[in-house]
Amino acid sequence: MTQGTHCLSTEALTELAEKVLINSGLDKLEAQHTAEILVLADLFGLSTHGVSRLISYTDRMRIGGINVKANIQIETLAPALIRVDGDNGLGPLVGARALHAAMHAAQQTGVALAFVRGSNHFGPVAPYCHIAAQAGFATMIASNATPTITPWGGKQTRLGNNPIGFGVPRPGNDAVVLDMALSVAARAKIRDLAKANLSIPEGWATNDQGQPTTNAAEALKGFLLPVGGHKGYGLAIMVDLLTGLLSGASYLTKVSSWQDAPDMPQDLGHIFLLINTKLLGSTEWLIERMNNFAGIVHDTQATDAKNPVLLPGEREYQRKNDQQIHGITLPKELYQQLLTMTNDKGNA
Amino acid sequence: MTQGTHCLSTEALTELAEKVLINSGLDKLEAQHTAEILVLADLFGLSTHGVSRLISYTDRMRIGGINVKANIQIETLAPALIRVDGDNGLGPLVGARALHAAMHAAQQTGVALAFVRGSNHFGPVAPYCHIAAQAGFATMIASNATPTITPWGGKQTRLGNNPIGFGVPRPGNDAVVLDMALSVAARAKIRDLAKANLSIPEGWATNDQGQPTTNAAEALKGFLLPVGGHKGYGLAIMVDLLTGLLSGASYLTKVSSWQDAPDMPQDLGHIFLLINTKLLGSTEWLIERMNNFAGIVHDTQATDAKNPVLLPGEREYQRKNDQQIHGITLPKELYQQLLTMTNDKGNA
Repeated sequence: MTQGTHCLSTEALTELAEKVLINSGLDKLEAQHTAEILVLADLFGLSTHGVSRLISYTDRMRIGGINVKANIQIETLAPALIRVDGDNGLGPLVGARALHAAMHAAQQTGVALAFVRGSNHFGPVAPYCHIAAQAGFATMIASNATPTITPWGGKQTRLGNNPIGFGVPRPGNDAVVLDMALSVAARAKIRDLAKANLSIPEGWATNDQGQPTTNAAEALKGFLLPVGGHKGYGLAIMVDLLTGLLSGASYLTKVSSWQDAPDMPQDLGHIFLLINTKLLGSTEWLIERMNNFAGIVHDTQATDAKNPVLLPGEREYQRKNDQQIHGITLPKELYQQLLTMTNDKGNA
Repeated sequence: MTQGTHCLSTEALTELAEKVLINSGLDKLEAQHTAEILVLADLFGLSTHGVSRLISYTDRMRIGGINVKANIQIETLAPALIRVDGDNGLGPLVGARALHAAMHAAQQTGVALAFVRGSNHFGPVAPYCHIAAQAGFATMIASNATPTITPWGGKQTRLGNNPIGFGVPRPGNDAVVLDMALSVAARAKIRDLAKANLSIPEGWATNDQGQPTTNAAEALKGFLLPVGGHKGYGLAIMVDLLTGLLSGASYLTKVSSWQDAPDMPQDLGHIFLLINTKLLGSTEWLIERMNNFAGIVHDTQATDAKNPVLLPGEREYQRKNDQQIHGITLPKELYQQLLTMTNDKGNA
């Protein structure tokens, strides 16, 4: 461990996150649901979407951007179709409620879909896929996001770098989980290369005129490119139509930015599709097929022998399994900030 | 019209396709279902997946690779969960049956998912999304495919260039439909560049050692690269898990190639997810939101003023609307071949 970090057990970090949330006005159960998502994000190594988000979440709750006393409404429109109105509540809390409502419905109907509106940033997708997989559900989960990319062939910000994820359970083993945004590279990576005065690879970004560039500084003024060009653009549009438009939430430029307008509701939309795999075959059937599938993938000759071929999410699960034994490492500054936030009743 | 083409009305091409199929042993209703999918493919300009496929389809039926007398089984595992066994029937026929079964279920349950196994190449995804959108359903539809790509970081063919598509209805207007495979470029494009002795762009393909190449000839011996590298690889894996593994069909290298082994069942898997948008709001509500969404996208300043920003599927719908008025253009050779196949009873 380096000097600038602090290592906690999963239980200790969960307790810390819950205390911060309770101190911000959430009740015990709400804090538990939210903390579970954020701590799973840290376990998976997705630390930009983990407990570090408690800073902006609690800031926004304090200034009324997120509704601390949200009355989350769950409406059953049809046996397999659920609509959740988050009442501008905390994203991971709204998300967890929607996930559990859809899991409950799919128990009977085999498949269920929850459309969510009136939500906020809900963390990464992987924790939700993981929780569902543990209970035997395959998933497709997605959200829209603050607009940061331009439509294909355009040069104005219109569309979020919308995350989408899928999970398939592998009983007795780690699930297969994909959690991705739709840009080729994250803006943070371009920022790092610009600082180092390096160029960026072809295909990552355009300049502010929508023209391809390998100049990192120009790219920062321009637009992130989606994976596969028009294909990733198309996926981002479809995710926004499903999560934003059909759910009744905001979409495209109507989505508010938590960074530029932290005091405003984002009105994000999400979808949670749950598939009850237990109705498709026995646990033994699923284990045998998943083991066979994983074996075929793992046996692929690697281009670089030091880097064996992996399944989606495998690296994240390795991180999780490792951190569950050895503890989760946070930057010391973040740890101390969270600690302060548990005692900071006057500010809540 | 050039000399080497023949132009037919939608009705005439549909009738021609139906006759070919009936002559191959399908009954009238089966021929109608199949022809509808293939002719829609041609209308959308997806001619590599349209009536031209009747050549390989009927060849495979003749040699027993596809079961002409398939007894397609539709099983309701739970109110919103359907499993279809295609009995090695014609792909578009199995697909159409699964689509309609899932639409029927989602009428009541709001959302329904059909898993399909024992199928064959089912044409493009767009026609299914279109048919569902006409009836008010949003869709996610996908299939696995003959393995042609290598897992990320590998150098052996393991995975199909699995197509996935989404559709959202826009009542009174063309739907928004995305239909994509997961490679950056099609192999046919690389073949054309190799013939012309030209290089291919970075990021399209690797050589046979899994290393990036811009040499078209080397790329033909190597592997297509998925969109967004590990992201597209991840999507291809998740599509195979959903369509192949969970459906009970074959997956990865277990999928048989219709080109290399035309006399063998492919045992492909598909999924059809249907969402009844009529339960989410009134038709007026959906029209207003879809018009607003389309307006925001279309109003984006274009990088090249001659190429305005489009929604997914817009180009294909323009083609369809145009061909419905002016007729569908086929290569004359294909037209004459199909014509022969309507009289070719002795061969069926």
